Amino acid sequence: MKNTFGNSLSVTLFGESHGAAVGAVIDGLAPGIEIDGEYIRKKLLKRAPHGRISTSRHENNEYKIISGVFEGRTTGTPLTLIMENNDVRSSDYAAFRSLARPGHADYTAYCKYHGYEDYRGGGHFSGRITAPLVGAGAVVLYALEKKGIFIGTHIKSCAGITDRDFSAPQADIICLNDRIFPVLDENAGEKMKRKISLAAENHDSIGGILETVIYGLPAGIGEPWFDSLESVISHGIFGIPAVKGIEFGAGFGFSDMTGSTANDPFVYDNGKISAKTNNNGGINGGISNGMPVIFRTVVKPTPSIAIKQDTVDFIKGENAALELSGRHDPCIVHRAAAVHEAVTAFAAADMLCLRFGTDYLA
Amino acid sequence: MKNTFGNSLSVTLFGESHGAAVGAVIDGLAPGIEIDGEYIRKKLLKRAPHGRISTSRHENNEYKIISGVFEGRTTGTPLTLIMENNDVRSSDYAAFRSLARPGHADYTAYCKYHGYEDYRGGGHFSGRITAPLVGAGAVVLYALEKKGIFIGTHIKSCAGITDRDFSAPQADIICLNDRIFPVLDENAGEKMKRKISLAAENHDSIGGILETVIYGLPAGIGEPWFDSLESVISHGIFGIPAVKGIEFGAGFGFSDMTGSTANDPFVYDNGKISAKTNNNGGINGGISNGMPVIFRTVVKPTPSIAIKQDTVDFIKGENAALELSGRHDPCIVHRAAAVHEAVTAFAAADMLCLRFGTDYLA
Amino acid sequence: MKNTFGNSLSVTLFGESHGAAVGAVIDGLAPGIEIDGEYIRKKLLKRAPHGRISTSRHENNEYKIISGVFEGRTTGTPLTLIMENNDVRSSDYAAFRSLARPGHADYTAYCKYHGYEDYRGGGHFSGRITAPLVGAGAVVLYALEKKGIFIGTHIKSCAGITDRDFSAPQADIICLNDRIFPVLDENAGEKMKRKISLAAENHDSIGGILETVIYGLPAGIGEPWFDSLESVISHGIFGIPAVKGIEFGAGFGFSDMTGSTANDPFVYDNGKISAKTNNNGGINGGISNGMPVIFRTVVKPTPSIAIKQDTVDFIKGENAALELSGRHDPCIVHRAAAVHEAVTAFAAADMLCLRFGTDYLA
Amino acid sequence: MKNTFGNSLSVTLFGESHGAAVGAVIDGLAPGIEIDGEYIRKKLLKRAPHGRISTSRHENNEYKIISGVFEGRTTGTPLTLIMENNDVRSSDYAAFRSLARPGHADYTAYCKYHGYEDYRGGGHFSGRITAPLVGAGAVVLYALEKKGIFIGTHIKSCAGITDRDFSAPQADIICLNDRIFPVLDENAGEKMKRKISLAAENHDSIGGILETVIYGLPAGIGEPWFDSLESVISHGIFGIPAVKGIEFGAGFGFSDMTGSTANDPFVYDNGKISAKTNNNGGINGGISNGMPVIFRTVVKPTPSIAIKQDTVDFIKGENAALELSGRHDPCIVHRAAAVHEAVTAFAAADMLCLRFGTDYLA
Repeated sequence: MKNTFGNSLSVTLFGESHGAAVGAVIDGLAPGIEIDGEYIRKKLLKRAPHGRISTSRHENNEYKIISGVFEGRTTGTPLTLIMENNDVRSSDYAAFRSLARPGHADYTAYCKYHGYEDYRGGGHFSGRITAPLVGAGAVVLYALEKKGIFIGTHIKSCAGITDRDFSAPQADIICLNDRIFPVLDENAGEKMKRKISLAAENHDSIGGILETVIYGLPAGIGEPWFDSLESVISHGIFGIPAVKGIEFGAGFGFSDMTGSTANDPFVYDNGKISAKTNNNGGINGGISNGMPVIFRTVVKPTPSIAIKQDTVDFIKGENAALELSGRHDPCIVHRAAAVHEAVTAFAAADMLCLRFGTDYLA
Repeated sequence: MKNTFGNSLSVTLFGESHGAAVGAVIDGLAPGIEIDGEYIRKKLLKRAPHGRISTSRHENNEYKIISGVFEGRTTGTPLTLIMENNDVRSSDYAAFRSLARPGHADYTAYCKYHGYEDYRGGGHFSGRITAPLVGAGAVVLYALEKKGIFIGTHIKSCAGITDRDFSAPQADIICLNDRIFPVLDENAGEKMKRKISLAAENHDSIGGILETVIYGLPAGIGEPWFDSLESVISHGIFGIPAVKGIEFGAGFGFSDMTGSTANDPFVYDNGKISAKTNNNGGINGGISNGMPVIFRTVVKPTPSIAIKQDTVDFIKGENAALELSGRHDPCIVHRAAAVHEAVTAFAAADMLCLRFGTDYLA
Repeated sequence: MKNTFGNSLSVTLFGESHGAAVGAVIDGLAPGIEIDGEYIRKKLLKRAPHGRISTSRHENNEYKIISGVFEGRTTGTPLTLIMENNDVRSSDYAAFRSLARPGHADYTAYCKYHGYEDYRGGGHFSGRITAPLVGAGAVVLYALEKKGIFIGTHIKSCAGITDRDFSAPQADIICLNDRIFPVLDENAGEKMKRKISLAAENHDSIGGILETVIYGLPAGIGEPWFDSLESVISHGIFGIPAVKGIEFGAGFGFSDMTGSTANDPFVYDNGKISAKTNNNGGINGGISNGMPVIFRTVVKPTPSIAIKQDTVDFIKGENAALELSGRHDPCIVHRAAAVHEAVTAFAAADMLCLRFGTDYLA
Repeated sequence: MKNTFGNSLSVTLFGESHGAAVGAVIDGLAPGIEIDGEYIRKKLLKRAPHGRISTSRHENNEYKIISGVFEGRTTGTPLTLIMENNDVRSSDYAAFRSLARPGHADYTAYCKYHGYEDYRGGGHFSGRITAPLVGAGAVVLYALEKKGIFIGTHIKSCAGITDRDFSAPQADIICLNDRIFPVLDENAGEKMKRKISLAAENHDSIGGILETVIYGLPAGIGEPWFDSLESVISHGIFGIPAVKGIEFGAGFGFSDMTGSTANDPFVYDNGKISAKTNNNGGINGGISNGMPVIFRTVVKPTPSIAIKQDTVDFIKGENAALELSGRHDPCIVHRAAAVHEAVTAFAAADMLCLRFGTDYLA
């Protein structure tokens, strides 16, 4: 369904970077969910650019909910959240219209849309569209928290610096909710920020690895085969720009393990079944086993860099050089964390509503 | 949609390991596609167990197409392929009914299906269900080859042994079509097989990494955001048992790169646009750019091992020990390659039919 | 999704009239639903041809459930029911291959499938495919009855003869379950049968009107706009061959009413809200109001008649005459009742599972 | 998918009668479709209230397209059209909040949304939401016309007055495009308007029958079984408020016909196959046969009337009387015609894009 993710509960994205507005429609949301404006703003702030480690473009971070909310609570009908675009300098882009920025969707969009695409600032492929996704996701994250399900994303590693692992997931997640730069170990975070600043000084960019945990998901969620939890989560996560890989639990590390070290032995204690280890990332056979669901994703270095690059003019059909002069992020890993939380919330909520019905989040 | 993958063209799986039959229904298939029995058998043979590196269970590998084919060609209506189960020793399983095999779906299936699940041999979660998936996928792979689109999966690494990279993708894929053990470098393959035999002697199991390439996919296939090529492919691939990670192009390697090394500069040559490198795995912004689509997946060590393991009896609610005595695969990486090819074919065909219509494969 | 109906709970049909088998796959079914073989056989018997008022083709009415059932109950994984074809006289059809039977899908199938369609006996468009649909539907009907939701279809009128209205829906439905010829007033039924026999003697055919009721559906089921109860029910019902119209409640009669006579005033009595009249057929704004859901459909006269008809040879491209000599039904209205019950059950179950979750029918 | 209709090409509705705005998102639209503002306004004008035969509420009829259009043409990414609400008198509704207006969705919405629904002016169930649907539909209707496919709806009958049949469908449809009151015979239209005025004077309301034709649809469009053209069209049409029945071709008239009179004999003339009659409404076996697709729908009398009605207070749980004093339409049949055209356009476009690919309308 192209710009829609989810079935029982779904989100649809629309908008272009330099159009009138960007937005998201949530359908299938339970009635009666409280809208906590402060919570939404906090999530939007985490996605917004900050200081020297981000673009200097000042994005409008204000949202309007134009449907689906009445007297501060969801009505159960489609919730539409829009964010108007401002501080757009469209003239920056006209000159480069037919020069494919390497690593970007300019050329593929041209192949698909035959030249009718809005090319300004990445158009519909811009990271700008993740703003209403984060805003809409915040409504779902908030509702999940009320059900005891907490979702948090931190920077696992960036520029060779590694954050600590989740130790007490729920407390760690609540703590991350308040951190603009989403790390568990703030010292590691400071080191990462210095590396990002360094990349910016070099007119270059860097990527990194995000780790997301779903804490409190009951056992038995997910479907066999093609709606496995991994399938649904990865489907959503690969919708986020710049994500090029995902692994659950031990992930690629499984290739160096044996069955006897990889299997997570179950243990019964005090009426509760859990696993001694969590190499499977909380998922067996595509279905949650009650352990925290853990996955890591890789975010590639921002493709927009201020270094001269070889490319083509795809309209003229000739080789060309490109030197971008716009306002770019030397790293989007930290900003992408809030987007991961939003998408993960939609994936989890969709599977929960399929299982328990559309009123589950009420 | 649980056991269904795809929209314009879809595949639905059914069956249990020890039930009457397992099967697959393809809907949305173009009319007039030739059914090449030899091609299908070859793919099924690649998935089947062979020699000492596989289970000694002798699976029935014969298929019947009971609908959707007339006079040797597809009719355009649902194609149903079934494979009957035989050589089933259901009594092996009754005694262990409530002992959760670590790493398997026994416990999660119990949580989801409240004890009504067919627990024999993994039931609906068994790798057995991939047999008709491979058979059905062969019909689509064959049709894609006629359109110049070739899909092949090889073992990138297993037990520390690495296969060579794809060099001439189309020729490499044709070559892989004829190899039971799917490697490009047969010396590397022999070494891998020895390692697998060794794991079997140790009553243990190992995993590995598969690499899949789609060669010949035109530029412009895929959708923005939630039906990105990565989203659709990963959704299908995570439906395959034991897959716990996927990465496209440079994948997790992106975390150690900079924008200037990661971006794939475009180049114009002789009327054709391509990229000098392929770190993005043939996909920009979720849409194919005409370069080969490349991704790697990790297959965890087979969870069934003949070593005594700690676990729980989830019905009695107590700790227990489990010693499996059945017939198990010390490694399923090589057998999973054919399944990867099938799922990738469904993903590519679905996106191609969405773009070009349901007759595209005719 | 072409041959699939439903989302939270879905049914997929496959097969051709003269192929190996016809079948249905139910996905999303709750675990633990009892399979009552007698109940299924009774429903299949109602759809089967009987006596002089039906075709003399002796269809195989035996079914096999090849997946999704274990120890007499559903497992929660896809349930596949197949029925093998027999007594097929394929040679009847080869001679007429390119003569479009008026009122049938021969020509439109040719336009869509370019000549690759299985033309024997209507192929995939044959009423034969409704057999597994009825068999699969019986599983759902049985489960709905356990939840207090009863679905029944009777012949409202046929050849000018009118059946009585539902008076006590639940008792009426239980009574219909046991009637091969589905009328509430058996005298009316005898008159209808005589008219059908008369049509057969004239080598002609007749149609009629079916009325279906869902009794016991709770208020609040259905979705606004495009998943209104009417939308979902009509979507499924128009999948049944020969249905050309559907109306809910007063239906087309609304065009002669005024708001003051058409509105159903609500009344409160003894803690329960109901409506004094039921012109809206139990549905307001697409959502059930707790009154019985009632709709009528028109089934056109069987297009297969033994009278010489004008038509075209669509391959040669010339006018032609056609005189069918096969075994045909002079009326399929009574046989279609069981199909209506099955489709209505899938529609209701899908909306109930969307609302209350996949375990609702357990 | 609740508020979404369509797969290859889809439309999603959002908004409430007295909320900030109502809107529609089209996804899957081809790139390069011209946006003809005049054409859109004309369609919106047909849906808008006019004179004494409509409500005196002055709806804002201005629209904004906030995404998916660039330099006057569609980009191929989601097109979002919004219409702000104004002239809302929300205070009219607060007093009646718990009195179920008979024939309306007040009570069923309360059952479904547990009291969190926006009850003002029908909230999400208001006909107001059809405004952006008509606006978005106009984009698709315009693109279909460029492909030679014309869709038009006229009032077949209202208050006992009958319009003439379509004679030259394409010319008739172009003519209807310019008529605010959509009849082919303007004398009949004048008589209808007098009857509607009379109903208004009586504080009552009336309904009627609409007839829609799709002219120029190629043969071979539609899918077998559950995506029959009838299934897809009826699914969409029953999303329109107040529609309670639909019939294709001869429709319910089939119940009085025989096979020999009902079948449409095919005829070959000058290289073209057509049918001598069109009782099947252009559809055989769920697939278009090249004849005009014709269907009729019944629109019930507007449930809002100024006559005192019996009802219940569903919060207090007691019987009550209701006398509506707001501004109401004595008839919405004529205004619903534009909505039928829009929904039919989405249904046809979805099936055409499924068959021919997403660029079909380009």
